[in-house]
This record gives sequence, structure tokens and C-alpha cells, in this order.
Amino acid sequence: MNQTQPYLQIALDSTDLSTALNDVHHVADVVDVIEVGTVLAFSEGMSAVKTLRQRYPRHILVCDMKLLDAGETLAEMAFASGANWITVGAAAHIETVRSAQRIAQQFDGEIQIELFGHWTIEDAKLWVESGVTQAIYHRSRDAQAAGVGWGEHDLMLMEQLSEVGLELSITGGIVPEDIHLFKNIRAKSFIAGRALANREGKTIAHEFRKQINHYW
Amino acid sequence: MNQTQPYLQIALDSTDLSTALNDVHHVADVVDVIEVGTVLAFSEGMSAVKTLRQRYPRHILVCDMKLLDAGETLAEMAFASGANWITVGAAAHIETVRSAQRIAQQFDGEIQIELFGHWTIEDAKLWVESGVTQAIYHRSRDAQAAGVGWGEHDLMLMEQLSEVGLELSITGGIVPEDIHLFKNIRAKSFIAGRALANREGKTIAHEFRKQINHYW
Repeated sequence: MNQTQPYLQIALDSTDLSTALNDVHHVADVVDVIEVGTVLAFSEGMSAVKTLRQRYPRHILVCDMKLLDAGETLAEMAFASGANWITVGAAAHIETVRSAQRIAQQFDGEIQIELFGHWTIEDAKLWVESGVTQAIYHRSRDAQAAGVGWGEHDLMLMEQLSEVGLELSITGGIVPEDIHLFKNIRAKSFIAGRALANREGKTIAHEFRKQINHYW
Repeated sequence: MNQTQPYLQIALDSTDLSTALNDVHHVADVVDVIEVGTVLAFSEGMSAVKTLRQRYPRHILVCDMKLLDAGETLAEMAFASGANWITVGAAAHIETVRSAQRIAQQFDGEIQIELFGHWTIEDAKLWVESGVTQAIYHRSRDAQAAGVGWGEHDLMLMEQLSEVGLELSITGGIVPEDIHLFKNIRAKSFIAGRALANREGKTIAHEFRKQINHYW
């Protein structure tokens, strides 16, 4: 897909597939990327990925495994079920990253490094050397819980990651009014979950889109 | 369960439940702990946990989620499905560890910190303060494939973790001849996967048991 703007992504994190299908149904024509969240994947298994692939053949489909080991087996399972992207935890051994990346290439898919724990920019360089092009930046839960907005520290880290060569998907209680903050970042996708899954989901999705159109 | 010796644990990491059920059937009377591996959990979802709980009501059942976020939801899902222990990635935010631990207590279950990435002994102290009593020391499967072996460094870290107060489950291509290496460690469980799942699984399980009996 020839990408000129950041994507809008819905993360499906319900514990059952029928709720997830209902949530995505309302916003499917406004989002580019559909994510089978870790909760949904563990609850329903790969049948969740297969069902969403079947229903939404044109969307980018992500399986948020946050995998830390068995890179080859898990990647193969998710890509064979129809995922385009899968997530790998930043704490995974670099050999696990390489294994998952090899499988991704076979399927013409991509892996995304999910930035949890004490990762460093040196790690990020190793990921890029392994062929990885994407990472996911999460706003700290502490900040979110304390009602603190996106901070200078987050933005600085995101710029450093962009400079290393990674495109970033950004998540963590993100709202349309935050979008402008990321205009200097190589933003791949903005990820929202509950904000898009509720009754006003479609309205909020359009607000996200408007902001994205404005800044990119 | 009043534990006087380390347990023997089979990790079920096939991509389908019927293979897993067949693998565990042969060794069920020699192992104490049955693990729904990450691969099986992502493949079949919580129905794998529920089925194994039903078939093996007296074994300790582990769900190897390596969770990094959504601690409360994922923990509740696994414990409600019948798991006694679940795993949490070492890279998880301490608030995620605490959430999972709170749910574990409600279910009279336990969480195990799975040691991937750049964790520190300071992290380990925080886990213990949060009520966590177990960790899993893992020689990465992908690191194994790249020829990384058990070394002095592994053993030193394991002793440090024991001193902090954590009981350790040990895994990563472990064979019966390795057991003696861990005699000074607070070993909770020895975990084997493919070694126990093949045709000689029962013989190998008995060899593990013999070594455990010899050193504890």
C-alpha cells in the first residue's frame, strides 16, 4: 500500500469475537488498520485473525502478539492466518526478532517492535539492521493514569526512533486533539481502542481523520 | 501443594490442541505441572486452558501468556479458564505486574515473571514487593538455536534471584544431565517441551525425576 498519510487503526481488545466484530463494523470504512489485540488473540486464538481477514480482505490486519520467543512459529501462525503485521516485544532476544522478520518477509508482511521495558536506542539500531521498519510507542501507563498528557520525553524518544529509521505507530489513550503533537514524527499509524469501539466511535474516527488530513 | 522437590513441567507448544492432548497423555502421571505454551494459547485461545483443566483436574496448570499489558483482563481470563499460574513478561510495567498479582490472589493463583530482556535485580525486588514469588529463567529458544548455552552467568543470575526471594522455574532446552547444575537454586519447576513430547517422552520424564530425586 502506498502510504502518504499516517493510518488510523482500531485495536480490538474485547474477550469475545462477536463484540469485536460489532465494534469494528461501525468504523471499518474509516479505519485503515484492524488490530486483533492481545486479549482477543488469547481469548479466541487464530480464528479471530482468520475471521477478520475474511470479513475485511482489504484492510491491513495486525495480530498484537507482543511475542518474546518462538518467533518463527508464532509469526508463521499469525501470517498464515491472514495477518499483515505482527508485534514483537522489545524485550525479545535479537534472534527472535530476526526469526520473526524472516517469516514476515516470506509472507510479504511486517513486524512491529512493541516498546515495553528497558529498551535502548542501541536495541533500535539492531532491529533496523535486522530489517525491521516499524515500532509501536506506548505512552506510559503512569502518565495516563495521572492524567498527564504526552510529554517532551515521549516526543524526544519518538524523534530518536524516527532518526534511527523506524516508522512509529502511536498509542496510549490518544485523542484527536493530540494528533498535531506528532507532526514531526514518522508516524505509521495512530491506534485507538475503546475510543473507537463505543457508540460515538464513527464520529471520533472522522475527527481523527480530519486531524490527520490537516497535518499530513 | 506442599512442595519438597522441584516440579517437573511439560510445556505444550504445538499449534493444535489435539497434538497437545496426545503429547501430555503419555507423561501426565510423571509430571506435576502442565503448561499451555504461548504458541498453543495463541492458536486455540482459552479453550485450550479449559480443556486441559477439565482433563487434568489435579495438575498445576500454567498459561504462558508472557503478558506485558492489560494485566487485569488477561489474568482474569486465564484464571477463570482454570489456570493456576500465569506468566508475565519481565518488561511489563510494575503496575501491570501488580494488577495481574491482585487477580491471581483473588483466584488463589500465582504469577510467574518470565525473564526476557534487560531486567535488573532492582526490578526483581519490586516484583517481590508486589507479592510475586516466582520467576522463570529462560534460555531463549532462538538463542539456543544460535548456539548459546547454559553458563556461569546464567547460574549467577539465578542465585541472585533466589536470594531476592524468588523461586525459579528453569527452561530452555534443558535435559536430565543439566539438573545437577541447579542444585543451589530455589528451583520451583523444571520445564521441558519437545523432549517430553516425543516417543521417548515418558522415559525422559523418568530420567528427569531420577535426577531431581537425587539432588533434592
